[in-house]
Amino acid sequence: MPEMRRDPVVGRWVIIAPERADRPNAFLRLPRDRDDPATCPFCPGHEAMTPPEVLARREGGSPNGPGWTLRVVPNRFPALRTEERMVRAGVGIYDRMGGVGAHEVLIETPEHTRALPQQSPEQVEQVLRAAQERMLDLSRDLRLRSAILCRNTGVASGASLSHPHSQLVALPLVPPELEQELSGARKHFQEKERCIFCDVVAQEARERSRVVLETDGFLALAPWASRGPFELLVLPREHRSIFEQSTAHEVRGLADALRLCLRKLDLALDKPACNFHLHTLPLREPAADWYHWHLEVRPVLALAAGFELGSGIFINPTPPEEAAAFLRQTEA
Amino acid sequence: MPEMRRDPVVGRWVIIAPERADRPNAFLRLPRDRDDPATCPFCPGHEAMTPPEVLARREGGSPNGPGWTLRVVPNRFPALRTEERMVRAGVGIYDRMGGVGAHEVLIETPEHTRALPQQSPEQVEQVLRAAQERMLDLSRDLRLRSAILCRNTGVASGASLSHPHSQLVALPLVPPELEQELSGARKHFQEKERCIFCDVVAQEARERSRVVLETDGFLALAPWASRGPFELLVLPREHRSIFEQSTAHEVRGLADALRLCLRKLDLALDKPACNFHLHTLPLREPAADWYHWHLEVRPVLALAAGFELGSGIFINPTPPEEAAAFLRQTEA
Repeated sequence: MPEMRRDPVVGRWVIIAPERADRPNAFLRLPRDRDDPATCPFCPGHEAMTPPEVLARREGGSPNGPGWTLRVVPNRFPALRTEERMVRAGVGIYDRMGGVGAHEVLIETPEHTRALPQQSPEQVEQVLRAAQERMLDLSRDLRLRSAILCRNTGVASGASLSHPHSQLVALPLVPPELEQELSGARKHFQEKERCIFCDVVAQEARERSRVVLETDGFLALAPWASRGPFELLVLPREHRSIFEQSTAHEVRGLADALRLCLRKLDLALDKPACNFHLHTLPLREPAADWYHWHLEVRPVLALAAGFELGSGIFINPTPPEEAAAFLRQTEA
Repeated sequence: MPEMRRDPVVGRWVIIAPERADRPNAFLRLPRDRDDPATCPFCPGHEAMTPPEVLARREGGSPNGPGWTLRVVPNRFPALRTEERMVRAGVGIYDRMGGVGAHEVLIETPEHTRALPQQSPEQVEQVLRAAQERMLDLSRDLRLRSAILCRNTGVASGASLSHPHSQLVALPLVPPELEQELSGARKHFQEKERCIFCDVVAQEARERSRVVLETDGFLALAPWASRGPFELLVLPREHRSIFEQSTAHEVRGLADALRLCLRKLDLALDKPACNFHLHTLPLREPAADWYHWHLEVRPVLALAAGFELGSGIFINPTPPEEAAAFLRQTEA
């Protein structure tokens, strides 16, 4: 049974999910490539190896059989589960609650080796639209307060299966990385009556030195305070606070921008391991003047060492201006 | 020139340190074992390969020559430098300041392969006393506000050299991981007139299920909300807020407890990569009723994946009670 526990000093919640390892000193997510289509649970014909699908796009076939172009299934080793009861309890000075949530896998393509940058614009768009649809569906569960779409590419990113997939995790709380953004953005708006992300878009579009690419609808840039080499931020140029409410045209624009960024990274850095995640308003919140959804792309090029872990301050050897210049030159 | 930059949304400072990489797409800290004593800059006879020592313990020889049992030298690729000017500037909506700080390396032993758990209790004590002495010295630079002692063991921990060494980083600000603790602990004390860490010591000593070892002066435990498998917290049983002011007896006690914890981890998990860091009050602050210094040990057993990065919520497959039981049984 997954359970959430709160650190008594800093208030940080963690998920204790013992189903994800079988012995105390064995770890499911040790780096290893499970790369054989013959045993891959995400390959066509192996649908029985995953829990039943909650969403699929099909050109034929019947549910939980082949013929799909995209499937969304619950994670077989979920960090959180909708079936949990929302129990909250104190344990002496400590606090815990049931691990209520959803942990879904978006199998992006039937093709085992078709990495996201090699997928067609339509395929990437289909993945993002499926995420949108699942977020809208999950938002009907009033226990769930936020959802994070994320993707791990490559063993060093924490990916345990190489078949192209993204993950969607819905949480019973607003997680700290999002909460810090909400709180910083709210404060900026209270003081200045402007969205801080719109300020970033305006300054970056003017200065150009950190811009990686600019399309009709989107700006991709190496952020001013990048935490690591070649970190990228992709955001709509117009103010938008809720990703799930994006129009089809906007989702297509994001797919194009994201795909192009990942192709540039692959070429510039020889297919680096990479994580990305999407930050949007908490579920069911009304559109906000002060927050702006966006996607953060984080190549895994340097390991977080003791200093970063102990301080929370990242050391980045690559100025974002250099990363951006390098990526601008890279034709993808 | 290292430079610190502030994220405009969440206020997080990062260090941009271009000296630490030579090309935009080359990274100094890519995993690789530089394991050859013939070229190791930390081996005796190679003293000229490091900047001049700022502290040494010697059984003979002269400064910056062989004969030492411990050396402290500035990092050759420093993330921060005392020579920087404390310039602060706004850049449009962004903020930056000079990378003022100190980044020192404690070379723990002349023996290239003598990992910390294999060092004698006296050697480990000598390392901790050297850290203490350096922190007291650095605290005289009024620009420096805090210091983090940390250690990376093994390639997966971010260690770039295998010769046993720790690092001491002094910062011109209080970093977020420490600030969050200070703020949580201060709030607890304001409400309850008790140190939250003393509360933890009391509850853990009573419950026993998360205790790994208990000595005269120290308690080592798997924390209630462990972020990863086999995370450990080592803290003085009596209330102490300033590590640098520890007595020789206390430092010896910490050395024994830390050494024993690391030996247990090595045996239980077959020498895992591991980080640890020490949290104490910011430099020059008077002793506080509400804060309690401690050491955090974090084996590197699972990779932080996109969800952790995007949410700040850690998924831990190993309940701390299981990790503690396993380590209690491990005879080291």
